[in-house]
Amino acid sequence: MEKERLRCPALEAKIATAEEAALFIKDGDTVATSGFTPSGYPKAVPLALAERVKNGEKIEITLITGASVGSELDGILAETGIVKRRFPYQTNNSMRKAINKGDIQYADMHLSHVPQFIDYGFFGKIDVAIIEAIAITEEGHIIPSTSVGVSPQAVANAEKVIVEINTSQSLALEGVHDIYMTKKPPFREPIPIVHSGDRIGTPYIVCGSDKIVAIVETDITDKVRPLGAVDEDSKKISEHIIKFFEAEVEAGRLPENLLPLQSGVGSVANAVLAGLVDSKFEDLTCYTEVIQDSMFDLIDAGKVTVASGTSFTPSEEGLVRLNENMEKYVKHCVLRPMEISNHPEVARRLGVLALNTAIEIDIYGHVNSTNIMGSRMMNGLGGSGDFTRNAYISIFTTVSTAKNGDISSIVPKVSHCDHTEHDVQVVVSEIGLADLRGLSPRERARAIIENCAHPDYRPMLLDYLERAEQTPFKHEPHLLDEALSWHARFLATGTMKPKVEKQA
Amino acid sequence: MEKERLRCPALEAKIATAEEAALFIKDGDTVATSGFTPSGYPKAVPLALAERVKNGEKIEITLITGASVGSELDGILAETGIVKRRFPYQTNNSMRKAINKGDIQYADMHLSHVPQFIDYGFFGKIDVAIIEAIAITEEGHIIPSTSVGVSPQAVANAEKVIVEINTSQSLALEGVHDIYMTKKPPFREPIPIVHSGDRIGTPYIVCGSDKIVAIVETDITDKVRPLGAVDEDSKKISEHIIKFFEAEVEAGRLPENLLPLQSGVGSVANAVLAGLVDSKFEDLTCYTEVIQDSMFDLIDAGKVTVASGTSFTPSEEGLVRLNENMEKYVKHCVLRPMEISNHPEVARRLGVLALNTAIEIDIYGHVNSTNIMGSRMMNGLGGSGDFTRNAYISIFTTVSTAKNGDISSIVPKVSHCDHTEHDVQVVVSEIGLADLRGLSPRERARAIIENCAHPDYRPMLLDYLERAEQTPFKHEPHLLDEALSWHARFLATGTMKPKVEKQA
Ligand SMILES: CC(C)(COP(=O)(O)OP(=O)(O)OC[C@H]1O[C@@H](n2cnc3c(N)ncnc32)[C@H](O)[C@@H]1OP(=O)(O)O)[C@@H](O)C(=O)NCCC(=O)NCCS
Ligand SMILES: CC(C)(COP(=O)(O)OP(=O)(O)OC[C@H]1O[C@@H](n2cnc3c(N)ncnc32)[C@H](O)[C@@H]1OP(=O)(O)O)[C@@H](O)C(=O)NCCC(=O)NCCS
Repeated sequence: MEKERLRCPALEAKIATAEEAALFIKDGDTVATSGFTPSGYPKAVPLALAERVKNGEKIEITLITGASVGSELDGILAETGIVKRRFPYQTNNSMRKAINKGDIQYADMHLSHVPQFIDYGFFGKIDVAIIEAIAITEEGHIIPSTSVGVSPQAVANAEKVIVEINTSQSLALEGVHDIYMTKKPPFREPIPIVHSGDRIGTPYIVCGSDKIVAIVETDITDKVRPLGAVDEDSKKISEHIIKFFEAEVEAGRLPENLLPLQSGVGSVANAVLAGLVDSKFEDLTCYTEVIQDSMFDLIDAGKVTVASGTSFTPSEEGLVRLNENMEKYVKHCVLRPMEISNHPEVARRLGVLALNTAIEIDIYGHVNSTNIMGSRMMNGLGGSGDFTRNAYISIFTTVSTAKNGDISSIVPKVSHCDHTEHDVQVVVSEIGLADLRGLSPRERARAIIENCAHPDYRPMLLDYLERAEQTPFKHEPHLLDEALSWHARFLATGTMKPKVEKQA
Repeated sequence: MEKERLRCPALEAKIATAEEAALFIKDGDTVATSGFTPSGYPKAVPLALAERVKNGEKIEITLITGASVGSELDGILAETGIVKRRFPYQTNNSMRKAINKGDIQYADMHLSHVPQFIDYGFFGKIDVAIIEAIAITEEGHIIPSTSVGVSPQAVANAEKVIVEINTSQSLALEGVHDIYMTKKPPFREPIPIVHSGDRIGTPYIVCGSDKIVAIVETDITDKVRPLGAVDEDSKKISEHIIKFFEAEVEAGRLPENLLPLQSGVGSVANAVLAGLVDSKFEDLTCYTEVIQDSMFDLIDAGKVTVASGTSFTPSEEGLVRLNENMEKYVKHCVLRPMEISNHPEVARRLGVLALNTAIEIDIYGHVNSTNIMGSRMMNGLGGSGDFTRNAYISIFTTVSTAKNGDISSIVPKVSHCDHTEHDVQVVVSEIGLADLRGLSPRERARAIIENCAHPDYRPMLLDYLERAEQTPFKHEPHLLDEALSWHARFLATGTMKPKVEKQA
């Protein structure tokens, strides 16, 4: 192994093949790994673990990651039946299928809760940590690759640590990470971040050579995901938001360079940021989870001075670009443990402008981010709750319809609630924007229906609201036997639109 | 007026009758007042305002308080139709009725959001602040009475400030308050509290004599509410929780003197704390909103060393006791602005043990704290979300049935969601306790049904779960056309129990 990658001679004895390293994982273990969005997750060891099972061994584990990871981890371990319990977020098709079949016990969690659940012992003992790294320092500390996620807590709490040195990950990443650990209550102290770019920790994860049981070299690349092209709907959503920001600045409720932006995962989120490139805003900062392609555009355009996150989440083109211009991006970016990138304390202090995408939103402003038709897990809520609750202004976006118009994303009542009416201040669809601040539930309903619902569904929504308003209790009126009937109708007929009765 | 009460001679010119002071309030104004639970709210000026309307004037206002206030404010202003818009919490019967009739536009908010909504200008201009005080200092600063709530932000942002000096409130309260203000982003700094009792501010609300337009003397007492006697159910709930805490200490997941306790409003919350008097726990601390009677018991028993809150919320007996032993309680208590008592930053840092009461909880762990049968506002969510989300462990209590057994407080799906499955770690009823940490939704369902549901409803709940598990998507399975049918049945028939078909 290159000396630059393994700088601690004492650890050379721990160099192992993926197969040898995988032997440290036993049936029944709880395994915590690096990885956040398909970035910086271990690949060689999970593949080797899967081989053991394919060869007839019985291995069942609990898997904890930062967030979603690629097919070499979530995909193959779900397909081989190795993962029995999974925390806290996933986006892999095989994993999602197994969860929805009921084969994997999945708990969807606020990402900021995960590190402290590990520290507090709420997941039980962490048997093994597997961490992807670009290098190990002289002292045996770990320099992560394209994400940090939950790695620092995994390393601190695991009995054994396996390190995957990934030579496809640029050594130029060194210096981008800022690793700060909180203590456990009652010994916790203030987190001393007052600007998005503040560096408060070390550029490596403290580990020490004793804990490391195996070091595996690999060059398997991150299986990054393609980003959809910016479509018309996303563009319109982005325009509505930028107009809203301009009006807030005008009204004196936002500084001219706004406040740190947080922007969720996915295509819409990427498009919204992309829209800022052509806006008049300057000197922007970001305090967010994932640093997507559009952030590189904003940095290149000189619009964003600093972006703090817990992972680089580029597309394939973005990855090439990142690697080719690493020095520049490292100067403008900080990768933190997800405990810090998502920390309520910091989000509320900085006053983030939170932009997150919903699956559906109801007329009163409750948001479903996770369960399609109430039961079918899509990904998980990720950090949306961490930011939303603590935002300066919390904005949710949704395209007004899905499935070619057969689903209205604005519904009488969400089929699953991830964010309550108390946490949603602005709703935006391609149709328009509803500013809900200071409105009562019924006023919110009218604002959302008029500004955000698709015209095909607007009359149905108004009709529901008006009939609900005839019931005795008018604070947040509902017709309980009809509230979820749109979803039930979709499940039964394939559309939320009612069948028009044929005239005889 | 006594010199001790009004220490700023320049302000003597501002002494006015309640009637004169009330004239500063105009039709269309937004009025922000002191008061948190029926403690420390203004009384004389609102009564005088109501008189103007009874005499034929048209006055309609938006009313913002810390939390609930007494009949002289919420009661009379709702009855006279003066309040048209109300934030963020209430418990008064007339107010509640008007909200549920749809006559008052009410927005139920996280209490920690309210101070920053005022600071950020999201409520618009604050025309008048009315603050109950025990005294005004030499410099024209305000020493609050039995609560702090939102008063510091009300004073800082209002155009005009009216002070009610209430001589029924003991001057010995001086020194109990600790007023610390945050700056607006991007200038916010860490809040330097690391122990429940830390004092970081001033013993008065900074105001200055210029802003004060009227000073009214009154002796109307706080209309405190009676506390129900500790009943059998509450006692059992308390016992389950104490046993749980003991086991957590035993397992090394909690320190021997626990972590700062937060305990919600109401009888059950009071009973839970009362149970600690006879427990083996010592050197307890509290970081909470309201300091209720049972806290005095705990302080007297030497069990609690320090209690931090934003208001004293005693019963009538409690109030007598507080006044008679003020010096002692002031030594052990700190009253903070509700921005600080409820701040996510501090709650997460200290690692509060959050104990809150639910109206109903569903099998997957979602909680309804506010809307009976989905639409009928009870009080509001208060600070429950602020603490719950940021707790070390978040516990919700409920008695397993309501209305003589015709309502199950454990339901297939909550009719309104205030706290999601992601924020609820432990559920307790008089039947038992369900520890949900690390469980998938279906595992949670079985834990809650088996440990917390009433035997009358257990088979119905299990039957729902098992049939839902037959549907294609098994992450959090639901039968959408049945999920809210228990509530609909109650509304239609007066009981959630299905009619048993008579055999022919
Ligand atoms: C909500 C979320 C899934 C949207 O992702 P996206 O890439 O912007 O959205 P897409 O338009 O591709 O929608 C994803 C899927 O949901 C479906 N969908 C969208 N709205 C829907 C609705 N109202 N009802 C049912 N299905 C819907 C789409 O049809 C698509 O399904 P498909 O994969 O079968 O084609 C994604 O943002 C997410 O996982 N959010 C939760 C986590 C989060 O917010 N993190 C932010 C902090 S990091
Ligand atoms: C939930 C809450 C109302 C319970 O209060 P409490 O005094 O412990 O409870 P009670 O048993 O008196 O119940 C209050 C009412 O709700 C009714 N109720 C209770 N459970 C119910 C259920 N499952 N369905 C319908 N009604 C129910 C009771 O019958 C009672 O009604 P009544 O006034 O008509 O008799 C109260 O804790 C609250 O307002 N919580 C939200 C705010 C909060 O949690 N703050 C904490 C941080 S400060």
